[in-house]
Amino acid sequence: MENVVIRQLVRNTARYENQEVELCGWIRTNRDQKSFGFMALNDGTHFTTVQVVYEKDGLDNFEEVAHYRAGSAISVRGLLVLTPQAPQPFEIKARKVVLLGDSPEDYPIQPKRHTREFLREQAHLRSRTNLFAAVFRVRSVAAYAIHKFFQENGFLYVHTPVITASDAEGAGEMFRVTTLDAKQPPLNEAGEADFSQDFFGRRANLTVSGQLEAEAFALAFRDVYTFGPTFRAENSNTARHAAEFWMIEPEIAFADLEDNMNLAEAMVKYVINYVLESLPEEMAFFNQFVDKNLQARLDSVVGSKFAHISYNRAIEILKAAEETFAYPVEWGHDLQTEHERYLSERIFSKPVFVTDYPRDLKAFYMRQNDDGKTVAAMDLLVPGVGELIGGSQREERVEKLEQRIKELKLDERELWWYLELRKYGGVKHAGFGLGFERLIMYITGVSNIRDVVPFPRTVKSCEF
Amino acid sequence: MENVVIRQLVRNTARYENQEVELCGWIRTNRDQKSFGFMALNDGTHFTTVQVVYEKDGLDNFEEVAHYRAGSAISVRGLLVLTPQAPQPFEIKARKVVLLGDSPEDYPIQPKRHTREFLREQAHLRSRTNLFAAVFRVRSVAAYAIHKFFQENGFLYVHTPVITASDAEGAGEMFRVTTLDAKQPPLNEAGEADFSQDFFGRRANLTVSGQLEAEAFALAFRDVYTFGPTFRAENSNTARHAAEFWMIEPEIAFADLEDNMNLAEAMVKYVINYVLESLPEEMAFFNQFVDKNLQARLDSVVGSKFAHISYNRAIEILKAAEETFAYPVEWGHDLQTEHERYLSERIFSKPVFVTDYPRDLKAFYMRQNDDGKTVAAMDLLVPGVGELIGGSQREERVEKLEQRIKELKLDERELWWYLELRKYGGVKHAGFGLGFERLIMYITGVSNIRDVVPFPRTVKSCEF
Repeated sequence: MENVVIRQLVRNTARYENQEVELCGWIRTNRDQKSFGFMALNDGTHFTTVQVVYEKDGLDNFEEVAHYRAGSAISVRGLLVLTPQAPQPFEIKARKVVLLGDSPEDYPIQPKRHTREFLREQAHLRSRTNLFAAVFRVRSVAAYAIHKFFQENGFLYVHTPVITASDAEGAGEMFRVTTLDAKQPPLNEAGEADFSQDFFGRRANLTVSGQLEAEAFALAFRDVYTFGPTFRAENSNTARHAAEFWMIEPEIAFADLEDNMNLAEAMVKYVINYVLESLPEEMAFFNQFVDKNLQARLDSVVGSKFAHISYNRAIEILKAAEETFAYPVEWGHDLQTEHERYLSERIFSKPVFVTDYPRDLKAFYMRQNDDGKTVAAMDLLVPGVGELIGGSQREERVEKLEQRIKELKLDERELWWYLELRKYGGVKHAGFGLGFERLIMYITGVSNIRDVVPFPRTVKSCEF
Repeated sequence: MENVVIRQLVRNTARYENQEVELCGWIRTNRDQKSFGFMALNDGTHFTTVQVVYEKDGLDNFEEVAHYRAGSAISVRGLLVLTPQAPQPFEIKARKVVLLGDSPEDYPIQPKRHTREFLREQAHLRSRTNLFAAVFRVRSVAAYAIHKFFQENGFLYVHTPVITASDAEGAGEMFRVTTLDAKQPPLNEAGEADFSQDFFGRRANLTVSGQLEAEAFALAFRDVYTFGPTFRAENSNTARHAAEFWMIEPEIAFADLEDNMNLAEAMVKYVINYVLESLPEEMAFFNQFVDKNLQARLDSVVGSKFAHISYNRAIEILKAAEETFAYPVEWGHDLQTEHERYLSERIFSKPVFVTDYPRDLKAFYMRQNDDGKTVAAMDLLVPGVGELIGGSQREERVEKLEQRIKELKLDERELWWYLELRKYGGVKHAGFGLGFERLIMYITGVSNIRDVVPFPRTVKSCEF
């Protein structure tokens, strides 16, 4: 008799055929029919629930077992038998069932349909449903695939700081991190909050990006990546915004925009392939219940060579389109999601890199092109979503960078070390950012970011 | 002619013998002797610097090359030749050298000894030294080893939230996260800061631990782990404290303290082994220049079966010791580092788990033992460091947990969901926390936490 988990039984059923096994898990459903009953049991190690059959004749505690409720934890000892006629490949014929943890009648996750809104309020329990069990397993496996991809390609993983005194990137509103008195902060002579008395002796924020620090590491280790939490204090209550989310930011030295796009394409394909191969049951579930086009879309991404197009050309195409857009198409304006989707869905029917955006649309650190108007930026647009990745070659020419910092009135003193990276052995380098949650939404078809984050943080919401 | 990185050349030297190769990198040293010169070149892909030999006859720009300074970036084209008589196995005979990025004379990382204090002020450049190149490569590889260990053992990786409204664990001082006006926060009727107007509609902090949320996931997925940043706003300016650090917290269901200790032992051994095998050059460097006992100590950890001892027995041993301790030994008092090191170094000469600590020394969630005095806690003490891991079996009996919450006057309303985990299918479960920086200090022998964090955050220090 062997203690097993469901993952073992599913992956290696033959080895356990007609063996007595013991397993623990939580009851999803329990139906009894006078002299026998069926339970669907899940132990969290695999998407599959195992059918447990129990009979009045076989169990001393049949009456009790027949009344075990959904959500209860039990241990089962029994015989694994193959069931070639049934939908499931095997079942357990129970010889002994022991209750480990009861579940009262008010258990919120009853075996019926719940709205995702309701389940968000049950974030501590929602992983016990098929949908969230699948989403969070994809999240885990995709995170690992990202590490695996970069590590096997010789990249160094760097933990860039979460707390930062810099707000140089200007990528969005920031959260302040403080230990000053909440009600009556000390003031300085100018009558402003006196951050010199704060924990770090200066104003500190939660980071919006690890890129600038990652660049320092790329200029020592050549190929590096970050993978950590980032934050935006934006007051936007949409399905695509969270205040706290994870970001992947590779940075590569001795590399240009072309190398950067090749890296992005290889990474996206690797991660999708890895998830498809590792989690076939979960992916089949999403394809059936969340988005019927999912499998086809992902297969097409993995199988295609991504397209490349300049921003200039994209504007020409959009202007010539017969489609009527809600937002006007004009050189110098940012592409809207409708434009991005038109390009990737209607024109190319596959992922497309748009490159060389107008300088004024992009951040100060992007490398200026010779035309004096555009920068060596790239966005990856994908069908069904729009922008998945944004990146650029970085400005490595210190005088160009200083000039841009002055034009944008950024604080040069704060960026002293970033400028020094150009002064001392600076070389061409590039990188990009990929929002991890957006990737998970893309892979699962789940459309609300709150449903791919274990415990989401959004405006006015910080429960658990 | 092939573009290569140094990692390829070191790992597969034979394949490149007498081949022309092209590589890029940064000059560590450059010595010229009238008609020829030597450069040590590093490209960040491997610990090794490659010797580049150049001759007056072979290069048009010999005079320029002879004056390239430390820190400059170059590309080199040349012939790889084996050098069986020399300390290094091969060198590159340069045919062409191109300057990619100059480095002025004031480059801070000159090829000489720098103090670690000085290098901390150059955190953007210090990875270009042997010590920090080695430390941060160990950090990257150890992080990957942790993911690999857990993923290959079927654990689910969960991103627990960084921002939390709970301070239930009481593990230390917390940072406040806010968007309220820094100078004049809004006040409520009671005259206190009105957090209902803050971003999250309530007071929010940076997390000190992901454990409670990880428990929710363990009670759905069985075996899970977190690996993310955690924060302490402690005003302690020591070599072992940082305000921001990364923590690994596995949590396992249907498991007790014994399973927990087995997991901790297997994980520590796996990670050390993985680093030793993956980074022999870096580990040899630490053993030679940082801690001459390092290799022996790590070998002994990997090769030993960890000892187990109860807190009660530990107190008896310490009381009977002939050693005079600075802190008195008394049942009910916490073990000090001197006690911990005495146990692991003098008594056992290997890692030792101390279990079943007095209840009042430990957190509210630890499982109460039948003696009414102790809890099912475990600390792992290791020679040379003291405590490396702290963990426990968790209290799964809801009434015992509620009673403890009341005794400690914690806010039960905040913990509603944590209590529900016990109410609905609660089972025995356990977990532990491992400070990632402490592990890196242990593996490298580096004794100051500021030197194992890329950009450290400590009291009054938040540069870069």
